[in-house]
Amino acid sequence: MPGQTKYLLDEGSMPTQWYNLLADLPVAPPPPLHPGTGGPIASDDLAPLFPRALVAQEMTGERHVDIPGPVLDVYRLWRPSPLFRARRLERALDTPAHIYYKYEGVSPVGSHKPNTAVPQAYYNAEEGVRRLTTETGAGQWGSALAFACATFGVDCEVWQVRASYDQKPYRRLMMETYGAAVHPSPSKVTEAGRAILAESPESTGSLGIAISEAVEQAAADDGTRYALGSVLNHVLLHQTVIGEEALRQFELAEETPDVLVGCTGGGSNFGGLAFPFLREKLAGRMSPVIRAVEPAACPTLTRGRYAYDFGDTAGLTPLLKMHTLGHDFVPDPIHAGGLRYHGMSPLISHLYEQGLIEAQAVAQQDCFAAGVRFARTEGIIPAPEPAHALAASIDEALRCRDSGEEKVILTALCGHAHLDLPAYGAYLSGAMQDNALSEEDLTRALADLPQVP
Amino acid sequence: MPGQTKYLLDEGSMPTQWYNLLADLPVAPPPPLHPGTGGPIASDDLAPLFPRALVAQEMTGERHVDIPGPVLDVYRLWRPSPLFRARRLERALDTPAHIYYKYEGVSPVGSHKPNTAVPQAYYNAEEGVRRLTTETGAGQWGSALAFACATFGVDCEVWQVRASYDQKPYRRLMMETYGAAVHPSPSKVTEAGRAILAESPESTGSLGIAISEAVEQAAADDGTRYALGSVLNHVLLHQTVIGEEALRQFELAEETPDVLVGCTGGGSNFGGLAFPFLREKLAGRMSPVIRAVEPAACPTLTRGRYAYDFGDTAGLTPLLKMHTLGHDFVPDPIHAGGLRYHGMSPLISHLYEQGLIEAQAVAQQDCFAAGVRFARTEGIIPAPEPAHALAASIDEALRCRDSGEEKVILTALCGHAHLDLPAYGAYLSGAMQDNALSEEDLTRALADLPQVP
Repeated sequence: MPGQTKYLLDEGSMPTQWYNLLADLPVAPPPPLHPGTGGPIASDDLAPLFPRALVAQEMTGERHVDIPGPVLDVYRLWRPSPLFRARRLERALDTPAHIYYKYEGVSPVGSHKPNTAVPQAYYNAEEGVRRLTTETGAGQWGSALAFACATFGVDCEVWQVRASYDQKPYRRLMMETYGAAVHPSPSKVTEAGRAILAESPESTGSLGIAISEAVEQAAADDGTRYALGSVLNHVLLHQTVIGEEALRQFELAEETPDVLVGCTGGGSNFGGLAFPFLREKLAGRMSPVIRAVEPAACPTLTRGRYAYDFGDTAGLTPLLKMHTLGHDFVPDPIHAGGLRYHGMSPLISHLYEQGLIEAQAVAQQDCFAAGVRFARTEGIIPAPEPAHALAASIDEALRCRDSGEEKVILTALCGHAHLDLPAYGAYLSGAMQDNALSEEDLTRALADLPQVP
Repeated sequence: MPGQTKYLLDEGSMPTQWYNLLADLPVAPPPPLHPGTGGPIASDDLAPLFPRALVAQEMTGERHVDIPGPVLDVYRLWRPSPLFRARRLERALDTPAHIYYKYEGVSPVGSHKPNTAVPQAYYNAEEGVRRLTTETGAGQWGSALAFACATFGVDCEVWQVRASYDQKPYRRLMMETYGAAVHPSPSKVTEAGRAILAESPESTGSLGIAISEAVEQAAADDGTRYALGSVLNHVLLHQTVIGEEALRQFELAEETPDVLVGCTGGGSNFGGLAFPFLREKLAGRMSPVIRAVEPAACPTLTRGRYAYDFGDTAGLTPLLKMHTLGHDFVPDPIHAGGLRYHGMSPLISHLYEQGLIEAQAVAQQDCFAAGVRFARTEGIIPAPEPAHALAASIDEALRCRDSGEEKVILTALCGHAHLDLPAYGAYLSGAMQDNALSEEDLTRALADLPQVP
């Protein structure tokens, strides 16, 4: 029986720079627009929300950005993360494909989110910010930011989507253990929350609403800034440590990936793995197919519109050119809370428009079938989000079985499912539904995209 | 701000042998006795319960036992595990002490238990066993065995203490995701369970009862064997990979521990870390104080009697000479489910009698205070069990602050708390009680120890 093959880097081989894909793109993505003027936003427009260092990273054209020493010191708690070859899964699938997975569940909160939470907390602390606000759905991002804020002595206040706050208390308890304050969203703490509650007192919330609340609080207080866990350029920039490490690990494995597969909600895990490989592809040094996988219940890339839209429900953010289902779209409750966002990173949306990446939507039950199969062969129970990528990777490997191709597949296993076990329970008991987005709901969702001034 | 310092071994430095402390003890521990004859048990007495290879390991006097290749292949999924120096915690405590922790939460189930679950499943599979039965409390051991059985294609059937089965569904769902069948204990499936239910239909169960059920099922079917997650020599043997790795990591750190601190329930995590260091101590190569830490609600070493007792409630096991609170003692419900066992490993009990280790009991709230402090400085939320060892380690470090001693402290962080977050919630909300064992309850618990024939 073949054992797991693990490719570890020593700490001396840990990347010391993040990679900025913007420096290498043949065509620049459309800029974010000011919703009042319709003109491109400037650094000053973002200053009330983010510290100067992060605003600069959001807009920089530099190819590489140095990772500060104190951030590297915290990264070392779990980085470099392992790359595994999934030999047991390959055998179970009887496929000639080689399946590799880069595993981010080794972080203290069990996901890839601390890769950006730590630098965000660090830069804010450096600039004297006393409090960070943010939103969270199921809670992966909120717990990552709570951990990072505890590390750098910054207060952390989280608006958590009401449905998750009520039904999934473990992540909230994790945030509180790290010292964060957590509000169910919509909350009575903010104007945005009160407006929603006045109209829908029983609202179970959405990421878009929670973003509105966190942004409003940050803008209202000079010692407070806002932190976002996905979508924006600087967030994806920080996540590129994943791909940079994976490139070095593939050198150890003496292989080159033919197919990269990652799940996409806001795009941070996918971009983090894919961007360094896309750099290599653009430079002609390798030629992997790069595939984004999203839930059929929230099919932003495959069925959304590429248009300017708000990042939040209340319309407080700049207008972003992205694949969107409409800023007031509330996806059906699926278990992959991290993929339930109405929009997509503008940078990843641009790559899709440029034909540099592919996209695929997967039904919920297929993801959990893949997750159970992976758990029983490879031993790690994947979070519902990366189970989407595993489902697509298994499809690819089964096509290789039929064709006889020895493709090398790399997938991003961005977290474990220790806090998502009730979702596996629902799947195993047969109580799970697929919840694919209907044509009617899609048409309705896209009806009121904002006009660009 | 100092960062975490991590001492990693490369895979080539992973131990390939387990260490058997029995080979080096100046005085041998008293043997297990047959409850019918009163004479020492023989290999044949254990054959209905365990495969031959494990019976041999239980009784061997060999100093080292080779780790089979297929076991090493699975260990590589998470081993070698990291050793960290807790520099942030040291700074928060303002102590000159150096605090190190060996972290086993990197395993797929988040604890040290797979170190023995994997070889147990392997040896059973090798000898043609089709099904393994076991008991579990909170579920750490059951989920480790379910993972290991999935890996080697053995069926797994778990009796889980009813209170945990009902109140803590996450671990049960983890076992089921790995494909195990889980019964609440006491169950109607076994004679032992039916007898308890006839007397106490509302029984919430205990580890002792669950062991009776699992043992009964294994003894009744030729293709079924039993697996135990702690207490026995072969279990502690497998866990010595922890200490062997830690010894090599201390060479990298160029330090020698002055104090070793581990939590004890049945003793597997403590023994796993401590035995290789005790070997070095017995050989005169170092001289650490070695300290076992147990809950004040279940103070086996510090307040139990050193006597022959059964390992289970129904009296199906051999008689073991150990520190015990009585085989029908049911500890108050504390959150460290892994430490709620009436007895203690006979080997560790013997070390305590011989003066080779110390013991200390800690109140529940002090453990959670230590756990929160650790989470907010070091970033990892410790499981309630190792939080006991952290509380004692912090005490030691604070004594060093007062005395100015630069002691080197090593503690066993045997798991994370992702599935124990409600316990942290109870602590943070002020709802937690200490539940120390009263004198009256102790006297009652010790009243009916069995007579040795």
